[in-house]
Amino acid sequence: MDIEKVNSMDFGEFVDVFGNVVERCPLIAAAVWSQRPFLDLEDLQKHFFAFIDALPQSGQEGILRCHPDLAGRDLQQGTLTAESQREHSGAGLTSLGPDEQLRLAELNAQYRARFGFPFILAARLSDRAAVPRELARRLLCPPAQELRTALGEVKKISGLRLADLLCADPAKL
Amino acid sequence: MDIEKVNSMDFGEFVDVFGNVVERCPLIAAAVWSQRPFLDLEDLQKHFFAFIDALPQSGQEGILRCHPDLAGRDLQQGTLTAESQREHSGAGLTSLGPDEQLRLAELNAQYRARFGFPFILAARLSDRAAVPRELARRLLCPPAQELRTALGEVKKISGLRLADLLCADPAKL
Repeated sequence: MDIEKVNSMDFGEFVDVFGNVVERCPLIAAAVWSQRPFLDLEDLQKHFFAFIDALPQSGQEGILRCHPDLAGRDLQQGTLTAESQREHSGAGLTSLGPDEQLRLAELNAQYRARFGFPFILAARLSDRAAVPRELARRLLCPPAQELRTALGEVKKISGLRLADLLCADPAKL
Repeated sequence: MDIEKVNSMDFGEFVDVFGNVVERCPLIAAAVWSQRPFLDLEDLQKHFFAFIDALPQSGQEGILRCHPDLAGRDLQQGTLTAESQREHSGAGLTSLGPDEQLRLAELNAQYRARFGFPFILAARLSDRAAVPRELARRLLCPPAQELRTALGEVKKISGLRLADLLCADPAKL
């Protein structure tokens, strides 16, 4: 899909295609459509990120809260979004052993209780061994810093999803 | 459900229950959770509305674009949210004749082309005869005024959905 195709979309098509670039936040894609036409993938991504950055803190926390726990309830119940399911699979999070699952569930619960949002990590840039290690490390970070870190992970995930949709190499962004 | 119950919810439960108070915008409920505890239904509603009002115009347009056309594609394909399906039924929009459907589809398309978002009306406060009449009237309004009107309808819909969830009489709000 090239950028001319993107720029030709009405808002219904655009939200159908880009609605899950930010996990379970079609509102953001629907808002970004207002900024068309886009120069290229980088420009499109810039508008997604600018929208996230301009939200009040409660809205940024809201974005985080729309994400599933890694290897949590949505994976077990089969209610992950298609994008998140692929990311879980790629990182090996769909084939954890019982002990790994339990450890991650405990850490996820501690993280949610401490910060008021779920632990978010760009799983495609990580793996099943690194996830609990990184979770345990970030659990100790100050809340304001952790909010910034989590939003940074959301942007990494969104950038990869956008690059997938436009079939671009994300390393070139 | 009383307000103590609402205030006791973790963000996962809160988004499960209130995630569609604003149609297909769980981000907003997830953001509002940051404002707990809530005094009462009116206070809870106030925070939903304040979040909407504080968004940049693109975000407000984004909310509108997450709404389905009235009696449009989602109704025909069975992909309306449960809340919207009930509102369509209540207003008689699920049993339009072919001529009424065609007329509404044409008006909806004109409206979308003119304003860049779908026509939104609190269907529970309207009926199948009033919908095309109101659509034809609003089609002639200036865009800035129409954005305000549409956001007002979103708030009416959200207020009714909130009142349903808390089993309150919306007339008393």
